[in-house]
Amino acid sequence: MKLYTYFRSSAAFRVRIALNLKGLKYQPVFVHLAKGEHRAASFAEINAQALLPTLELDDGTRLNQSLAIIEYLDEKHPQPALVPKESLARARVRSLSYLIASEIHPLNNLRVLQHLKRLGQTQEQIDTWYRHWIADGLEKLEAELRGKAGKFCHGDAPTMADCCLVPQIFNAKRFNSDLAPYPTTLRVFEGCMQLEAFDRAQPSKQPDAE
Amino acid sequence: MKLYTYFRSSAAFRVRIALNLKGLKYQPVFVHLAKGEHRAASFAEINAQALLPTLELDDGTRLNQSLAIIEYLDEKHPQPALVPKESLARARVRSLSYLIASEIHPLNNLRVLQHLKRLGQTQEQIDTWYRHWIADGLEKLEAELRGKAGKFCHGDAPTMADCCLVPQIFNAKRFNSDLAPYPTTLRVFEGCMQLEAFDRAQPSKQPDAE
Repeated sequence: MKLYTYFRSSAAFRVRIALNLKGLKYQPVFVHLAKGEHRAASFAEINAQALLPTLELDDGTRLNQSLAIIEYLDEKHPQPALVPKESLARARVRSLSYLIASEIHPLNNLRVLQHLKRLGQTQEQIDTWYRHWIADGLEKLEAELRGKAGKFCHGDAPTMADCCLVPQIFNAKRFNSDLAPYPTTLRVFEGCMQLEAFDRAQPSKQPDAE
Repeated sequence: MKLYTYFRSSAAFRVRIALNLKGLKYQPVFVHLAKGEHRAASFAEINAQALLPTLELDDGTRLNQSLAIIEYLDEKHPQPALVPKESLARARVRSLSYLIASEIHPLNNLRVLQHLKRLGQTQEQIDTWYRHWIADGLEKLEAELRGKAGKFCHGDAPTMADCCLVPQIFNAKRFNSDLAPYPTTLRVFEGCMQLEAFDRAQPSKQPDAE
């Protein structure tokens, strides 16, 4: 398998974690988001959405959208399960994943920050925007996890929700967000980072890291 | 079942469509987003994420995040299937759904537009923001659907992707976005709207419509 990835892409980071957790080997193909390589005509043939990541299977089939890729991997390689078997637990893990992937991350990804810059916002205003949505989203996540999380977001084994949580916290740290109000979230994050699968997927350990 | 809903919420609209497609009856509970009722302490007990929709099952269990709810409904009430059975098709339907739910909608929902207003943006600037992200997102969606969509987003029966597409197009129309560059997307939208399940779920036909 090939994974089209960029060291700092949160969405690619989620899939790197999932692949590592399942013990699946992949060949990385580096696409430099900050230089706009994902908008090149040649990449449109790889991913019509012009987004990372794309997973290319050995037969050449390409899948995109990080959570669709993780659900696919979980169906084809069920152990260890990243989406639980029981329906209510599945709904819970998906809900936590979407809270991060649909409510927090989209407001703060690179193209939004670049657009704010084009609109004439100063770096300080952009950082304020970033931290506003991090605080808004992590407050919701903490409310979900408080008293309900196990060692991980759901129970005592990592799930798709943890694959989403860890890249989001990496981002928040990079922008110096105050994480003290989210102790459960931070505890889960730290538990994840003790696992080699999460550690090895982090941006600074990628071959394309700058 | 009870559905906590607001006529203009795109995420609640997705679930209303799914419930209608499956022929499932529900009792609506109206939460006025524009008045901020979702941020009330009493609603935090219903949904820790302070978001719509929430689906309350007959035993009192509550589920949140629209796509987690739709996947749950599809697992418990498999006919008609909103997520196909075959893994690559599942990945495709999810990818299209997430493209709308994670890449387009989050940048334009009510709380983002309200936040831009608080930052001092004029209504014209807010409308420009809105249309920028609609154009960015629908261009990606059109590229995905062109030559690949059937009567619906994936094949000739409605799926979760159509449950996402229709509310997004309703939104785009409300903000007078130019939809001419997206003929495949519009064709699918119009096909959906010929079905009673989509028509009956639309904002203006809800009891709480203003």
